[in-house]
Amino acid sequence: MKGIPASPGFAVGPAVVLVIRERRPVKRMIGENEIPYEWNKFQAALDQARLELSELVRRLEEGGNAEQASIMEGQLYLIDDPEIVQGVSDRIQNERVSADFAVYETFGEVVKTLALIEDEYIRERIADLQDVKNRLLEQITGETDKAAALLTRPSILLAHDITPSMTAQLNKELVMGFVTEVGSRTSHTSIMARTFGIPAVVGCGEFLAGWSDGETVIVDGETGEVFQNPSEQQLAEYAKKQEAYARSKEELQAFKDIPAETIDGKRFGMYGNIGTPAEAAAVLESGGEGIGLFRSEFLFMDRAAMPSEEEQYAAYRAVLETMSGKPVIVRTLDVGGDKEIPYLPIGSEFNPFLGWRAIRYCLSDTALFKVQLRALLRASAHGDLRIMFPMISGEQEILDAKRLLDEARSELEAEGIAAAAGMPIGIMIEVPSAALVSDRLARHVDFFSIGTNDLIQYTLAADRMNEKVSYLYDSQHLAVLRLIRMVCENARKFNVHVGMCGEMAGDPQLVEILIGLGVEEFSMSAEQIPLVKKSVRSLSEEAARIRMTQTLE
Amino acid sequence: MKGIPASPGFAVGPAVVLVIRERRPVKRMIGENEIPYEWNKFQAALDQARLELSELVRRLEEGGNAEQASIMEGQLYLIDDPEIVQGVSDRIQNERVSADFAVYETFGEVVKTLALIEDEYIRERIADLQDVKNRLLEQITGETDKAAALLTRPSILLAHDITPSMTAQLNKELVMGFVTEVGSRTSHTSIMARTFGIPAVVGCGEFLAGWSDGETVIVDGETGEVFQNPSEQQLAEYAKKQEAYARSKEELQAFKDIPAETIDGKRFGMYGNIGTPAEAAAVLESGGEGIGLFRSEFLFMDRAAMPSEEEQYAAYRAVLETMSGKPVIVRTLDVGGDKEIPYLPIGSEFNPFLGWRAIRYCLSDTALFKVQLRALLRASAHGDLRIMFPMISGEQEILDAKRLLDEARSELEAEGIAAAAGMPIGIMIEVPSAALVSDRLARHVDFFSIGTNDLIQYTLAADRMNEKVSYLYDSQHLAVLRLIRMVCENARKFNVHVGMCGEMAGDPQLVEILIGLGVEEFSMSAEQIPLVKKSVRSLSEEAARIRMTQTLE
Repeated sequence: MKGIPASPGFAVGPAVVLVIRERRPVKRMIGENEIPYEWNKFQAALDQARLELSELVRRLEEGGNAEQASIMEGQLYLIDDPEIVQGVSDRIQNERVSADFAVYETFGEVVKTLALIEDEYIRERIADLQDVKNRLLEQITGETDKAAALLTRPSILLAHDITPSMTAQLNKELVMGFVTEVGSRTSHTSIMARTFGIPAVVGCGEFLAGWSDGETVIVDGETGEVFQNPSEQQLAEYAKKQEAYARSKEELQAFKDIPAETIDGKRFGMYGNIGTPAEAAAVLESGGEGIGLFRSEFLFMDRAAMPSEEEQYAAYRAVLETMSGKPVIVRTLDVGGDKEIPYLPIGSEFNPFLGWRAIRYCLSDTALFKVQLRALLRASAHGDLRIMFPMISGEQEILDAKRLLDEARSELEAEGIAAAAGMPIGIMIEVPSAALVSDRLARHVDFFSIGTNDLIQYTLAADRMNEKVSYLYDSQHLAVLRLIRMVCENARKFNVHVGMCGEMAGDPQLVEILIGLGVEEFSMSAEQIPLVKKSVRSLSEEAARIRMTQTLE
Repeated sequence: MKGIPASPGFAVGPAVVLVIRERRPVKRMIGENEIPYEWNKFQAALDQARLELSELVRRLEEGGNAEQASIMEGQLYLIDDPEIVQGVSDRIQNERVSADFAVYETFGEVVKTLALIEDEYIRERIADLQDVKNRLLEQITGETDKAAALLTRPSILLAHDITPSMTAQLNKELVMGFVTEVGSRTSHTSIMARTFGIPAVVGCGEFLAGWSDGETVIVDGETGEVFQNPSEQQLAEYAKKQEAYARSKEELQAFKDIPAETIDGKRFGMYGNIGTPAEAAAVLESGGEGIGLFRSEFLFMDRAAMPSEEEQYAAYRAVLETMSGKPVIVRTLDVGGDKEIPYLPIGSEFNPFLGWRAIRYCLSDTALFKVQLRALLRASAHGDLRIMFPMISGEQEILDAKRLLDEARSELEAEGIAAAAGMPIGIMIEVPSAALVSDRLARHVDFFSIGTNDLIQYTLAADRMNEKVSYLYDSQHLAVLRLIRMVCENARKFNVHVGMCGEMAGDPQLVEILIGLGVEEFSMSAEQIPLVKKSVRSLSEEAARIRMTQTLE
């Protein structure tokens, strides 16, 4: 059997087959006098689900699992979705059906509408909806189905899919590996498996019927292969692979505390990308020399209103204090596109990726933007803070953003509040036009950070979340490489730092190409830092440059 | 009063104020025995509307108004929309309401959903839905409201909006000008006014209440101004303007039959863009030297199934015969994005402009693509046909498309059917990556055609249909100009023709820039050809090149 390798490593152990029956309550009509009772049952289920989820989020955050916590926070938000509450209310009060059936029907309708959209991101939202629906139905009917929580010994979990709720309940110590029928490299299961370092293969297609609990499984997180009741020879082979994998992981530890220097003596900056202040510590532990990208939008997501100036100030300050003097680049609010913030009036768009996003939104909502800029300026007194503006397409947006920053600084000065003088200002280069006019943009900023995810998407006009065209999303397309080199050459010419913070920057296999193109600083998720360092230390900068020049001509 | 100038020219004449009451049937409950009667009324209204619309389409096509015809064909399709038919059926049979109320409610619901989307394209679909709804209600209730058809003398029409149905009924000989409360330059009213050469101002906001029939109006299609009961002085002023406008229109006639040659003797190709075979004649009449873009997707739209090979062959052959030996560039099916073809399984996408479009779709549906290629090859025996592939992002797509073309050619040869040898092959340059690697792409093709609409959109990552970000859509952005020059330089270097067929190519004010960048051929809507020719004849190519080089450095 073969699927998509979603989390590296090898696992050998007994199978636990997790079959989740879909809850499908029967339609039960109620009398008028039962309406308040059923409505109260629904309200109680909401309250209980809210409690459970908040508790989960707290535990996950304490455990440092920011990504998982953010997923569960998203579900917490779904619980109060007015459309869903209204739908259930209508069904109980007007259609006179029981609370469980009303919940089942309401979620089913929302899911049906979303399912028409062929998109990876939407598919994940559906998984969240199903998860919340099951949680509410469990509460209302009192029937639980917590098989996943019942692991009693180290096992490999075989399931249709691992929902975020199941993940949160799992005792990860006992999970040796995952194999699922559905999913992709970016689905919940995959992200979670990588976060916890558990080997996983997803998207294998239907297979659960052919398996029983206790059968031996081999999970190969490198090739995506899965073996049922393997032979002695296969077991021996994988024992060796496991050992080699453990050894190489250990070796990587050695790279954490030495500089990323090529064999010909050129040193490169190694930085971490973070979404929440709690993640900064992991960057330090992995040998990161600073934060190359703090995605400030995570402060704004999964909540009912915008974070206050105080709240933002505290978050930025916390990161600066953790990093004690090392540089921290905060990207201003990058909203829109696939990042929805319900309390901002962005609305639905025909092409969100080409829409009202990031700096475009911020320059039109100057009240909101100023609060962030004030918080950043105040925090700048506590460390080496740098501000970065996202989605810049030309000079005017930089000038407008800098004018607002100056205004915020003057306001603070008038109030007698200190901000660091000469704070460096940078921009994301992620719109093709910005790369093409980077010589002009360089005049206005101190640094560039190349955001490859969007840059590739726009340059090739291919939404990488869209399965029908994701084959076109090619980080090594000649056009992409030429744009990156253009940016690096202009940066050098105009004496501006140039880093990269998209996914390309964390891929050890692409380091030679990027060094050859002229990238000076790399920012990536913490766990990639030792890998990329190792790669840098095996290369010659001069050879990389010569090779790349040949490739591009 | 001021609005958006939507169609050039000046009109002075008596007002006809067209107040259309919104039809809002009362909710009438019906008995079970009335269900078949109401259902039949609905069916009869559908049949009648289908007849009327087909007849309108036929008349418009005969009159050469392809754009109008295509809009009405779209409405014809709405009539058979299964969601709408189902919605009305449910309401009559289950909710037990009369047919008129069922129609009113069903359309209202669809419109309500679409209205949430802030998008120009969707807004036009809503106008079509309202139009079809009113047509059906007229049939069911027997109440007509055809004020627009009652014009008895040359007048200026003042209305909330001009719907496509009204347009089709209007006696254009009697309409001197239009003024509307709503609309934009791309709304039905505006397109129609330009098609018929009627001065128009749209989007004036609410004003109808302050006007009466017979008052004198001046419509200034250049500035967007509208004057109510103008002074003697204003009337005199506009009489002069009308005269000057008529004179300049006449002067333009003189440019139709002389070459587009600069004052320093460089000649440029002037071609027309068409959507249907019927439009080719207008290109010839305007002095076009060939068809630079035949948008073959119009053969596929507003119908229930794909056009057969015979049908396509006949359409391509008709254009070639009209053009008698002049070049005709046919762009292969450019579906997806905002061009929906209901019988193709494209589905809804999160970002259609970055999705499964054009060559991407065709290379995956080779059966459909081969039919088109066979039809094109067969037609090529009847004139100078050239094939152009849209949305090319890199070399592989060209190789794949050419392989399919070779297969189609071999099949035809085996069947003993002739196709022109050495038919030129070209590609659209509309994805930024194609421009950036145009040196590589030039090896595989005979010509490039720069599609500025998409190229600008992707380069600036801004959906030009999205009102929130359309301010970023700037055809003169330095990044866009640099890409265009890059393509022209690579074309010259590798001996490939380079033309342009996006909206920029038909703008007389941009001709100097485009010549300066190295564009050799211009393709545009027929009516622009004399204007662009005039502009070319006033310029020096050398001066344009020098000026542009200075701008870009």
